[in-house]
Amino acid sequence: MAVKVAIIMGSESDWKVMQAAHDVLRELGVEAHAEVVSAHRTPEKMFEFAKSAKQAGFQVIIAGAGGAAHLPGMVASLTPLPVIGVPVKSANSLDGWDSVLSILQMPGGVPVATVALDNAKNAGILAAQILALSDAALAKRLEGFRTAQSEKVLSSKLSI
Amino acid sequence: MAVKVAIIMGSESDWKVMQAAHDVLRELGVEAHAEVVSAHRTPEKMFEFAKSAKQAGFQVIIAGAGGAAHLPGMVASLTPLPVIGVPVKSANSLDGWDSVLSILQMPGGVPVATVALDNAKNAGILAAQILALSDAALAKRLEGFRTAQSEKVLSSKLSI
Amino acid sequence: MAVKVAIIMGSESDWKVMQAAHDVLRELGVEAHAEVVSAHRTPEKMFEFAKSAKQAGFQVIIAGAGGAAHLPGMVASLTPLPVIGVPVKSANSLDGWDSVLSILQMPGGVPVATVALDNAKNAGILAAQILALSDAALAKRLEGFRTAQSEKVLSSKLSI
Amino acid sequence: MAVKVAIIMGSESDWKVMQAAHDVLRELGVEAHAEVVSAHRTPEKMFEFAKSAKQAGFQVIIAGAGGAAHLPGMVASLTPLPVIGVPVKSANSLDGWDSVLSILQMPGGVPVATVALDNAKNAGILAAQILALSDAALAKRLEGFRTAQSEKVLSSKLSI
Amino acid sequence: MAVKVAIIMGSESDWKVMQAAHDVLRELGVEAHAEVVSAHRTPEKMFEFAKSAKQAGFQVIIAGAGGAAHLPGMVASLTPLPVIGVPVKSANSLDGWDSVLSILQMPGGVPVATVALDNAKNAGILAAQILALSDAALAKRLEGFRTAQSEKVLSSKLSI
Amino acid sequence: MAVKVAIIMGSESDWKVMQAAHDVLRELGVEAHAEVVSAHRTPEKMFEFAKSAKQAGFQVIIAGAGGAAHLPGMVASLTPLPVIGVPVKSANSLDGWDSVLSILQMPGGVPVATVALDNAKNAGILAAQILALSDAALAKRLEGFRTAQSEKVLSSKLSI
Amino acid sequence: MAVKVAIIMGSESDWKVMQAAHDVLRELGVEAHAEVVSAHRTPEKMFEFAKSAKQAGFQVIIAGAGGAAHLPGMVASLTPLPVIGVPVKSANSLDGWDSVLSILQMPGGVPVATVALDNAKNAGILAAQILALSDAALAKRLEGFRTAQSEKVLSSKLSI
Amino acid sequence: MAVKVAIIMGSESDWKVMQAAHDVLRELGVEAHAEVVSAHRTPEKMFEFAKSAKQAGFQVIIAGAGGAAHLPGMVASLTPLPVIGVPVKSANSLDGWDSVLSILQMPGGVPVATVALDNAKNAGILAAQILALSDAALAKRLEGFRTAQSEKVLSSKLSI
Repeated sequence: MAVKVAIIMGSESDWKVMQAAHDVLRELGVEAHAEVVSAHRTPEKMFEFAKSAKQAGFQVIIAGAGGAAHLPGMVASLTPLPVIGVPVKSANSLDGWDSVLSILQMPGGVPVATVALDNAKNAGILAAQILALSDAALAKRLEGFRTAQSEKVLSSKLSI
Repeated sequence: MAVKVAIIMGSESDWKVMQAAHDVLRELGVEAHAEVVSAHRTPEKMFEFAKSAKQAGFQVIIAGAGGAAHLPGMVASLTPLPVIGVPVKSANSLDGWDSVLSILQMPGGVPVATVALDNAKNAGILAAQILALSDAALAKRLEGFRTAQSEKVLSSKLSI
Repeated sequence: MAVKVAIIMGSESDWKVMQAAHDVLRELGVEAHAEVVSAHRTPEKMFEFAKSAKQAGFQVIIAGAGGAAHLPGMVASLTPLPVIGVPVKSANSLDGWDSVLSILQMPGGVPVATVALDNAKNAGILAAQILALSDAALAKRLEGFRTAQSEKVLSSKLSI
Repeated sequence: MAVKVAIIMGSESDWKVMQAAHDVLRELGVEAHAEVVSAHRTPEKMFEFAKSAKQAGFQVIIAGAGGAAHLPGMVASLTPLPVIGVPVKSANSLDGWDSVLSILQMPGGVPVATVALDNAKNAGILAAQILALSDAALAKRLEGFRTAQSEKVLSSKLSI
Repeated sequence: MAVKVAIIMGSESDWKVMQAAHDVLRELGVEAHAEVVSAHRTPEKMFEFAKSAKQAGFQVIIAGAGGAAHLPGMVASLTPLPVIGVPVKSANSLDGWDSVLSILQMPGGVPVATVALDNAKNAGILAAQILALSDAALAKRLEGFRTAQSEKVLSSKLSI
Repeated sequence: MAVKVAIIMGSESDWKVMQAAHDVLRELGVEAHAEVVSAHRTPEKMFEFAKSAKQAGFQVIIAGAGGAAHLPGMVASLTPLPVIGVPVKSANSLDGWDSVLSILQMPGGVPVATVALDNAKNAGILAAQILALSDAALAKRLEGFRTAQSEKVLSSKLSI
Repeated sequence: MAVKVAIIMGSESDWKVMQAAHDVLRELGVEAHAEVVSAHRTPEKMFEFAKSAKQAGFQVIIAGAGGAAHLPGMVASLTPLPVIGVPVKSANSLDGWDSVLSILQMPGGVPVATVALDNAKNAGILAAQILALSDAALAKRLEGFRTAQSEKVLSSKLSI
Repeated sequence: MAVKVAIIMGSESDWKVMQAAHDVLRELGVEAHAEVVSAHRTPEKMFEFAKSAKQAGFQVIIAGAGGAAHLPGMVASLTPLPVIGVPVKSANSLDGWDSVLSILQMPGGVPVATVALDNAKNAGILAAQILALSDAALAKRLEGFRTAQSEKVLSSKLSI
């Protein structure tokens, strides 16, 4: 069975943030491919990756980047697949505002599904929600995931 | 055939922004249901809507709101379906920053796929991209839509 | 005698901030109930809590949350009681701006009495001020609290 | 019966915003006193007003101001009554950010219950919620107000 | 003689801002080529343009875009030529902050020479300054331009 | 000879920032009085201080505060003396933006001479510049101070 | 008698804002010289003006500018006189934030007494307050000005 | 052969950021002169440096500064050479926003080629790109530099 989710990121240092997408997808039983693809330092690789992503069997692409973060938007311009963007508060970012705005504020015609700053976990869950629309077993696992999440909060104890 | 996309918004006045989602979906041959559901003024309706959305046959929910915009996030907490959030720069918003941040910055576990401020058109396209993963005809129409979009830009003439 | 103040918060980790509300209320002789109630991870519990808060005897609700902080506003939409919101600068917040704006910028019709970022102490004092309107003994204690506060500042010594 | 709510504002020009507090209180059957009191241009009047507000029979003070808005906080430092602050986006404000931050960010010990930018209506409702804690008839009217508000949203019609 | 400056922009509507670059260059006797090249809607054209720009004889590229403005940075990643970025406060931008940050905050290795928001005139002058390093006649004209500019300010008359 | 400069601050903890004003004034041979005066916690003391400052012989008041910083503006409303405001990035401030805006953005009629965030040194120098207008010896010392400052920069050595 | 206040500004278009300084000074019986001096377009004139300002008899300089507003700070670096900076929200400014920050945030050693955005009136009053320290008649007029200002507010009438 | 790039900065403490410009230029075989020149503390030196920079043989000036950063813009007003500005997030800056805006937002007529916050490396590369327009050997080295940069990213390994 083809790997349906690709997790790409602008630099190796983004992995410490992006790993959470990989982790939550694994927890949900979804295999994901992870790779460094830089819009600015390897634009040709980025082009090829994005242009061939659908043929390669991917259904959702998660792209994380920081600063003037062009990776999610550029990939979205080159593939018909839904692209989820993760703004990363990297060392070269202005408190994360640049990462957020340069991923979120895409022009009409080329959407990027943006999640919260550094929240790769939510990118993974969103990818799973999309895949679950045509995968009843995954939908079931997602339901269990959410129930467990609720129960964890319900059992919180404050040390008053 | 069931209507697969629901477009909800916090108030009637959001429709002038949210209509673009409806329009682009229609252009792509996707029927959408549109309705006012206010997280703050009709919380019970919002709860019922979100809890029953999957059973009702919806596959994607587009939710737009302005100011302290809680509608997309609350709906996302109550349905397993992917929720697309549209920050609306409504009259009672602080230049749109409140709308953007209160939709985008969801905590781990409950993603909202956020698009650019007032960019309901992109919410519609994103919904179509998601549905197209299991609808080859729609995928084809989307491709045509993107080609037309490129051609329009390619034929731009500057009045130099 | 019923407990009149409820302190709720989106996650256990908010307690290190919210505890100050509990502490100052205790100092003022006001008993408070504290509990984790997450708008996003336990929406049903949140609904039930808010809908029954008045019947349970509460008169004021203090709600703290961070990031896309929907707890104070959603509770305010479900109870006629005054709700005091505490924006928490949690790990998943954008320097606290998201917490502030998503609590403060409520639409017309559903107010949240917002206090400063991370300032749960002020939420506690505000709750006491409200209760003191019909509790002369508490009003007296509040007066003493303020006098002590002034005296502490008046006795400041600078190490020039 | 004494007038229980005072609405004060930094300048005559704030009235176009603050009037909504007066209007919604009247709609809820709560009489309110309205007056211009400037922290910066009439500091002595402000001092006297705040120091005597409780004796004058007021139970809640709504204070609106723009720019470096010191009125709500200074009044709060001089009265034990709960003070509700309305940040006004006046002509001399920096898009409202100054109004919001100089009202909201009060130091520990002196809370101001801040509502959204220009949202005097919510200040009025919040004042009514506080008074309703010891006024069952007002509580009833508030309930009716909220029901009407919900019904208005429920009857929204989109011109699709 | 080859045209040495290319002025590109994300959409036809950016021309009303970008035209000032064209105008000032003409005033300085520098011919410029202007064209719409959208990073997101015509990514292939953008790639080809950028990859061949040096061979085509261009020496400086001026690129303007708004919102999540990826055009200047992407072109800079594909050409060794200096790229000047003009953040445009277009209709789909968040008061221009998105345009500024997504052009300015480029990662190490791929600079974009960013000028002020909507200040295409300065982009044109900067391009001329660069070309003037090896064009003494242009350097002379630039000097005259600056002198005229000073003289205009020196002759200002205030209507006191 | 009377002490001509008063340095006041909202809390003892501001002294670590405000001390620089005292230090630079001492370096310039200007004696200064320093004291904690809280607008919010000791409003009466603040009133008395400000109302009597001129009679007490002060010519310039330096006031530092953080968060919703009302001290400089309130003192300015109560004294005809020039008031210099120092925004302090205190623990309870929102990255200093609240301190800056609530000191700077005073309404027409009541100026506060605001200096940079945490820059009490500049407040001291500005006070000295004002006093030097009628004190030739101080003017001379200021000149020496500036010369020394320039020479220190001129003698900088980079460890290339 | 020498003119003691100079009002300078970066461009002719700043006069519509800066005129208020001239007006209020005239109202207070203080003559002021007004002139366009651009830091960026007439740097030599700016240098000469600032270097000779004290000798020319000026005691206070009011400098207004917008965008990357360098005029107040550069003049302050070249004269021992107190410099009052007025951030102007000019057409080429980013909602005034650039004007504010580039005037306010001066480094240690070179203060600029900054007033609120576009608030040239306050710059004029501040200049008068400084001059009044050694001019009893002006001090008297300032007192009258403030009294009139208070009385105007005291006589406000709300159209309830 | 003359040194063609000058790297100047407002204070010695900026060197830890600005050194990266020097380093990358050395790596590219471009000699650079580095020196502390403060717009505010040594304005005369700054004037002389800028006025004579072209005669001294420089072709590009890189100027770094923090806070109200006037150095790049003032130098640009005094030399016809292209000036590259590096906003430095120095200790006395407001999270870097002041540095960015006071360098970037130059008025029409006097451009500064601004790079990302603290990104002196990119300033160095941009300077090299400009020089390479008339230096084929440097163009070749730049090409090699970019290839190496791409290869480094291409060989990234994620520790999955």
